Amino acid sequence: MNPLDIIIKKRDGETLSAEEFQFLISGYVHDSIPDYQIAAFLMAVYFRGMMPAEIATLTRIMRDSGAVLDLSDIPGFKIDKHSTGGVGDKVSLILAPLVAAAGLVVPMISGRSLAHTGGTLDKLEAIPGFRTNLSIPEIKSLLKKIGVALVGQTADLAPADKKIYALRDATGTVHAIPLITASILSKKMAEGIDALVLDVKAGSGAIFETKEKAEELARMLVTTASQFNLKTVAIITSMEQPLGNAVGNWLETREAIETLRGNGPADLLDVTLTLGAQMLVMGGVAANLDFGKKILQGKIDNGSGLEKFLEIVKAQGGDTSVIEHPEKYSSAKFAFEIKSPSVGFVSEIHCREIGKISMALGAGRSAVTDGVDYTSGIVLHKKVGDRVEAGDVLAIAYANKKERFGENKHRLQDAFKIIDAQVDLPPLIQGWVDASGEKAYSSKES
Amino acid sequence: MNPLDIIIKKRDGETLSAEEFQFLISGYVHDSIPDYQIAAFLMAVYFRGMMPAEIATLTRIMRDSGAVLDLSDIPGFKIDKHSTGGVGDKVSLILAPLVAAAGLVVPMISGRSLAHTGGTLDKLEAIPGFRTNLSIPEIKSLLKKIGVALVGQTADLAPADKKIYALRDATGTVHAIPLITASILSKKMAEGIDALVLDVKAGSGAIFETKEKAEELARMLVTTASQFNLKTVAIITSMEQPLGNAVGNWLETREAIETLRGNGPADLLDVTLTLGAQMLVMGGVAANLDFGKKILQGKIDNGSGLEKFLEIVKAQGGDTSVIEHPEKYSSAKFAFEIKSPSVGFVSEIHCREIGKISMALGAGRSAVTDGVDYTSGIVLHKKVGDRVEAGDVLAIAYANKKERFGENKHRLQDAFKIIDAQVDLPPLIQGWVDASGEKAYSSKES
Repeated sequence: MNPLDIIIKKRDGETLSAEEFQFLISGYVHDSIPDYQIAAFLMAVYFRGMMPAEIATLTRIMRDSGAVLDLSDIPGFKIDKHSTGGVGDKVSLILAPLVAAAGLVVPMISGRSLAHTGGTLDKLEAIPGFRTNLSIPEIKSLLKKIGVALVGQTADLAPADKKIYALRDATGTVHAIPLITASILSKKMAEGIDALVLDVKAGSGAIFETKEKAEELARMLVTTASQFNLKTVAIITSMEQPLGNAVGNWLETREAIETLRGNGPADLLDVTLTLGAQMLVMGGVAANLDFGKKILQGKIDNGSGLEKFLEIVKAQGGDTSVIEHPEKYSSAKFAFEIKSPSVGFVSEIHCREIGKISMALGAGRSAVTDGVDYTSGIVLHKKVGDRVEAGDVLAIAYANKKERFGENKHRLQDAFKIIDAQVDLPPLIQGWVDASGEKAYSSKES
Repeated sequence: MNPLDIIIKKRDGETLSAEEFQFLISGYVHDSIPDYQIAAFLMAVYFRGMMPAEIATLTRIMRDSGAVLDLSDIPGFKIDKHSTGGVGDKVSLILAPLVAAAGLVVPMISGRSLAHTGGTLDKLEAIPGFRTNLSIPEIKSLLKKIGVALVGQTADLAPADKKIYALRDATGTVHAIPLITASILSKKMAEGIDALVLDVKAGSGAIFETKEKAEELARMLVTTASQFNLKTVAIITSMEQPLGNAVGNWLETREAIETLRGNGPADLLDVTLTLGAQMLVMGGVAANLDFGKKILQGKIDNGSGLEKFLEIVKAQGGDTSVIEHPEKYSSAKFAFEIKSPSVGFVSEIHCREIGKISMALGAGRSAVTDGVDYTSGIVLHKKVGDRVEAGDVLAIAYANKKERFGENKHRLQDAFKIIDAQVDLPPLIQGWVDASGEKAYSSKES
């Protein structure tokens, strides 16, 4: 067996065997197959796709490239949520404590910011002292003690995914549904969970802009997971504008804290409660979604969600005082306001562009090894559908280096479209996919 | 400008600018762009192709990545021949001395064996002492003195092609017509030639199996070359069975010597004289192909072709005694015969398989850094269309390690198909492509 023959087979649209995938992936992980051959292979997959059986095989091999957590000695139903990534998506920071407060075990492994989307790890690390690089024994100890851990992908878990993901990111092969599926599921299955809720974003700020492509990914994720007896439901949510108002690490963490305090923006709360309620239904805590949402809203109202978040921060070495008094956190040195040039309605906030501007202001990294700037970013003061007067503040941009403003002022201004007529908002919850097939759903029906 | 954006542009089927090609190629040559990004780019090109203007741009940039020979101080018409590669193709060794003997200047830069095809350099280096790694001044000195040089691609000439070719070979992206075109022409144009004859092979032993694909490549080569005012004619020749009888380095060199002595196999002679006559027509030495062939046959008959070959060998440091007395060259240690199991006609000799078996016997390399074994290979005793009796020797395989025979015995036997009825041979010369468009042609019309 040699890598070239396997590349050519895939290039020519043939189906690969489990042995061929095993040879390729383990060769790559152990450095006997060079990255340029895997890069060519990934691009061939981009064009040729994979059969469902190939995707399941690749997922299994990537999962088994490292340790798989054995959580059988931890009582309770273990469940996680994964989002395909969006702008302003700080759901994990709110959802994990709420669901844990409701009695489920949440071993949540997250990623860092990349391209135009932020990363949960960077948002958490905005909290002084917060450690995300926990070892497997530390993760298990946290799950036992407080029922939740918010950590990064350790070197032990799905190392093949880690290596392949970095290569995909550099070679224009991120957007291949078979590769996305294997990447997400291999990593999540290594967590040793009983069930998984997927938030598949659709829209200008998402990995796929159209609902059709997002649904295709959702179906592939759910179908593949079902072959491993992992209970999975995917929810398609809209990413046509940033979720909530804050974009940027600490800005988002602070909005998550506000949401746990009961002062969250409606769209952020809606997505969080929907995903969380689905987790409670799958975990047997709630009989249906409405009841699940009520339970979670109760955890906000009685403060036990925030309490759980404080427990997490404390357990992972973070400074809880900034959670209790977010106003004490130092702000970015510089700010500028973008104002509405005219009276009308906000018809569009270009989501990907907002993400890119936030990164350019300092909130993101252009290379994996770059650091991020926690206090820079953007806070939206108007969202799509809002009525505005001329001169109303649309958004405020924050940065710690004045030279970062430059062209970003114009870009931020241009990201907003103001028109005369009121616009219809697309539903936030766009669809629902489970192993029994796709169900039509809109947020109004919940 | 960054490599990822360029990869994505090509992946999505867009046309690249000259600046983008320049950025990519010079970044790769100077190691600022990693091979894995170029590998992904090449695979995207494989699927998306290139516009004619992109191919011309890439060709120019690859040519200009190194030195371009200036042969203006050497009198005479400079012309070369390039073959896309086949099994048993030792045409260059016969053609170059014949055409030089006829008065044209032939600065021929060749390659090494790769995959299932042999390489002219390896065949030449089978001659003890023969040096192919000449410097540019040495090449020019030879052209002045004897009107011909048979050399390898120096590090100065089209280094981008050298690097990209090695990567294509390892990533399953050899068979992309735009990349083949840019590779051949950038290298050949760096020779500073006035005209070029291309032998584009079609058949089971060729880069493309069908005549249609070979013609597509031929048209692309001729069209692209015409944009550089390089006079080019492409001849499509059949590669359905090995050319001549010998396959393997010294075995082929010996057959080339025999052909220069007037004892060559008919098919090898036909292809050589056709390509050579085309060179003489383009160089103004012959008024038409028939006359060109007669001139070249005269150079065989009067011994001046062999004399020129001896001059080359001597000038490039080779031992001329093995050319004058090939029987003195030591033979491979081991041989085995493949015999016809039945009476009938040879209907097929699987060309690519013969090439692969010859390589497996020791004649080829699996990595660029491997050495080759000069005396191993295969000599065919019957060719397609020949009548055979049961027990007739079909071929003899040669190797220097007995363990190399093993399964190759069965493979060689299986490469021959014997049937009851006589078969029609496909014409050896299948088509003709020049800048004025394609002309129908068959060897019978010449």
